[in-house]
Amino acid sequence: MLHIRNFIFKAFIFNYNCSVHFKDTSFVLEENDEIVAFLVGFVSQAYRQQAYIHFIGVHPDYRKQNAAKQLYEIFFQKVKQCGCTEVHCVTSPINKGSIAFHTKIGFQIQQGDCEVNGISVMTNYDGRGQDRVLFVKRI
Amino acid sequence: MLHIRNFIFKAFIFNYNCSVHFKDTSFVLEENDEIVAFLVGFVSQAYRQQAYIHFIGVHPDYRKQNAAKQLYEIFFQKVKQCGCTEVHCVTSPINKGSIAFHTKIGFQIQQGDCEVNGISVMTNYDGRGQDRVLFVKRI
Repeated sequence: MLHIRNFIFKAFIFNYNCSVHFKDTSFVLEENDEIVAFLVGFVSQAYRQQAYIHFIGVHPDYRKQNAAKQLYEIFFQKVKQCGCTEVHCVTSPINKGSIAFHTKIGFQIQQGDCEVNGISVMTNYDGRGQDRVLFVKRI
Repeated sequence: MLHIRNFIFKAFIFNYNCSVHFKDTSFVLEENDEIVAFLVGFVSQAYRQQAYIHFIGVHPDYRKQNAAKQLYEIFFQKVKQCGCTEVHCVTSPINKGSIAFHTKIGFQIQQGDCEVNGISVMTNYDGRGQDRVLFVKRI
């Protein structure tokens, strides 16, 4: 059975420091003590009413089972308790699945500086040539 | 003349969100309105007495001019004001220049789980195969 808990340190699938410094707002989804999905997020240090989802990963065998949605929901609950009123995240304009997912769970696309296939995009957001779709959701 | 100021958003040389959410603890070093070095750091969300230096970059033409040291010092001052008593950062075991620099400015190497060329290293710290030297400095 899938269950969520706060980040634990065996998840050596990405930068360890995320799981240390943001552990209270980062979560893993496990089955039989194996991590099948994770979400790393934090409360903005500069804008305390904002939370930001840094990244999320779901094991290919566990797609289409609401794993990401469960992680987002527990994150929304947690950062709301921290006093956040909005959650931000970004995705690549080519990641249509991610755009559809975020829109489906209530994220709005923020105004960018250009439009790609009808989607507002901020150019060079994550570095030169790294355009991003910016999402925000009020919680 | 080199001068330091808080992060501004034209520094599209890495993840923009760092410069948004961690802007009060991130700095650029400029000359003639051009960024020649930057430091991105934050106060740990989980351990408020800890600050973490996420990353730093110095333009090759501005090495050996204390650019990194200046950025570290302004960061130390800032996070001390935030109530931090220690600063953490990590580097790769092969980055001898970084190890020498951090040791020189007063960082201590934390105990890892193995030793490489006489340096204590934590294996798989930043992901599988990504061993790191862990530094801490009391401020």
